Amino acid sequence: MRTTALIMAGGRGERFWPRSRKSLPKQFLSLTGDGKTMIQLTVERILPLVRMEDIYIATNKIYKPLVQKQLPGLPEQNILCEPVGRNTAPCIGMGAAFISRRYEDALMIVLPSDHQITNSPLYLDTLRAACDVAERDSNLVTIGIQPAYPETGYGYIRFDPASRLGQAYRVDCFVEKPQLETAKQYLAEGRYLWNSGQFIWKTSSILKNMERFMPDTYAGLMRIRNAVGTEAQAEVLEREFAAFESQSIDYGIMEKADDIYILPGAFGWDDVGSWLAVERLQTPDKEGNVESGNVVSVNTRDCIVQGQEKLLALVGLEDIVVVDTPDATLISSKEHVGEIKDLLARLRAHGQEKYL
Amino acid sequence: MRTTALIMAGGRGERFWPRSRKSLPKQFLSLTGDGKTMIQLTVERILPLVRMEDIYIATNKIYKPLVQKQLPGLPEQNILCEPVGRNTAPCIGMGAAFISRRYEDALMIVLPSDHQITNSPLYLDTLRAACDVAERDSNLVTIGIQPAYPETGYGYIRFDPASRLGQAYRVDCFVEKPQLETAKQYLAEGRYLWNSGQFIWKTSSILKNMERFMPDTYAGLMRIRNAVGTEAQAEVLEREFAAFESQSIDYGIMEKADDIYILPGAFGWDDVGSWLAVERLQTPDKEGNVESGNVVSVNTRDCIVQGQEKLLALVGLEDIVVVDTPDATLISSKEHVGEIKDLLARLRAHGQEKYL
Repeated sequence: MRTTALIMAGGRGERFWPRSRKSLPKQFLSLTGDGKTMIQLTVERILPLVRMEDIYIATNKIYKPLVQKQLPGLPEQNILCEPVGRNTAPCIGMGAAFISRRYEDALMIVLPSDHQITNSPLYLDTLRAACDVAERDSNLVTIGIQPAYPETGYGYIRFDPASRLGQAYRVDCFVEKPQLETAKQYLAEGRYLWNSGQFIWKTSSILKNMERFMPDTYAGLMRIRNAVGTEAQAEVLEREFAAFESQSIDYGIMEKADDIYILPGAFGWDDVGSWLAVERLQTPDKEGNVESGNVVSVNTRDCIVQGQEKLLALVGLEDIVVVDTPDATLISSKEHVGEIKDLLARLRAHGQEKYL
Repeated sequence: MRTTALIMAGGRGERFWPRSRKSLPKQFLSLTGDGKTMIQLTVERILPLVRMEDIYIATNKIYKPLVQKQLPGLPEQNILCEPVGRNTAPCIGMGAAFISRRYEDALMIVLPSDHQITNSPLYLDTLRAACDVAERDSNLVTIGIQPAYPETGYGYIRFDPASRLGQAYRVDCFVEKPQLETAKQYLAEGRYLWNSGQFIWKTSSILKNMERFMPDTYAGLMRIRNAVGTEAQAEVLEREFAAFESQSIDYGIMEKADDIYILPGAFGWDDVGSWLAVERLQTPDKEGNVESGNVVSVNTRDCIVQGQEKLLALVGLEDIVVVDTPDATLISSKEHVGEIKDLLARLRAHGQEKYL
């Protein structure tokens, strides 16, 4: 069976402001220090498993030129444009509709475009094992990450250690981001994995589940499917997306469906969720700083500094994030870096859209 | 007797980098939030006491265009250009030489160009009283500041409370910047004042003391005096300054001369010695921040932020100084702001003179 991939690249990632902007979200940025953007790395990583012609990118239509520029080898018709964002369920459904129009049935690997994987060979082995489980018994399969510490910013997935199928386990339930005490319990219990938002299934499996649990969306997806490749395609997408309920695949399908399986991944994963990820993905110098661009510092420790041409001069700082761009400079304590969203809300409230 | 003033404006003030540069030192900057530069405020402050035509500015020759631009009412011949910096004694001697060539004898008020005075009327009263003491008995007079706290960054002057002359007291001795414990003792004793670097004397008095304590410099000053207004003036200045020993007026004269008097000043004084002065000179907002320019901040307290057109976006900061300029941005903890000089040394060592 043909193996295809749907890479979801519609996010607007405020957490990497000011480098990420509405017009240039995180997945189109290079954040790992190797010059390649997150979406380029995501595609490159799965090429041993999926041919370029079978990789689909789902994104907002305003980002189509960015995708074309960053992935010049991708066929243009593989860029699936969401007219508006409706969360992951309609996005994935659209992907399944396009792919199922081309192949009667196919394996479909669904991936975020903006995560980091450390060990690609191990990652590919995990994906191959997941494909086996998904193909053999028409299961919905996801990849969970072995928790390294009691993170409160991720959702968790509980599995049944006694219900092994190949390298996978049957999923008991999806759980929301926990409080710290609960997260510690999860870690101690040993049967919880981080939800990494990566899924593997046959197009027939996911569409069948959509028909059952999201029938209205399914009906719209079938109209989209019929329009693929016709003159009406763009117009139908526009109309159906406007009508879709905004819904996550977790809530819409995964928390309700039977026979969900999970593979524990031990390949080194990071969701690159904030500027703090930069020091996990790059090697800090002996003062603990990760600096790039035109930076000079004195008596400065454990800082993340992204300069450009302009000189950033740091004196006596600790645990500070500095990100310079031509029209805005962010200076944040590491502790409060999550409040960038409040800053952007304030800019929005003051009519300063040009910085967003 | 005519009252003249010599304003010393040759400093290169690294401590206000990156706004102050070799090409634009602190005295030519506006730091008090009212749009006027330090030297403009200094001149304006003494105009009720000294006519513009009797105000002299001593500065390095490279700053002459800045003085002319910022003080358009000042006669050009009143800008006294030091070919090289030789500390305050030769600078003041040069002023006395020029003034004594014009007036047989005159009162001469010597002032730094980059200090802040809060209460101008009270300040002028103090200067007038100092002029009385200096004129009547040919004394060397200085203004001391009543210490508000045990500052370790200033020199102190001890006076004899029993030796009153007008509003002045006889000086016992000049003392170097003290350790904290010593500074506390000074405060407790009640007969120490901060050395503010302001002097009042007759030209005849200071020249007589120079003849006695700095005879080589005095001889050079007399050669300069003879050349004032002649075609040889620039050439003689060049030659004599090259030969002058670099010497402060404190060490060269004040610590050795007899009959030094001091007036305690209670007019509100600040030497504007670092970026930390900005929050003393301007009113912090309710979060304790002093912000100017294009700044947006969230959860930020007790920071000093000088922006320009570019957006400075601050998140979760405390006790940080941020100063933006077109080619360099300083970000420093308040605690370590004194290490700007180390930063500039590093830039110099790396051939980055363009930022100095």
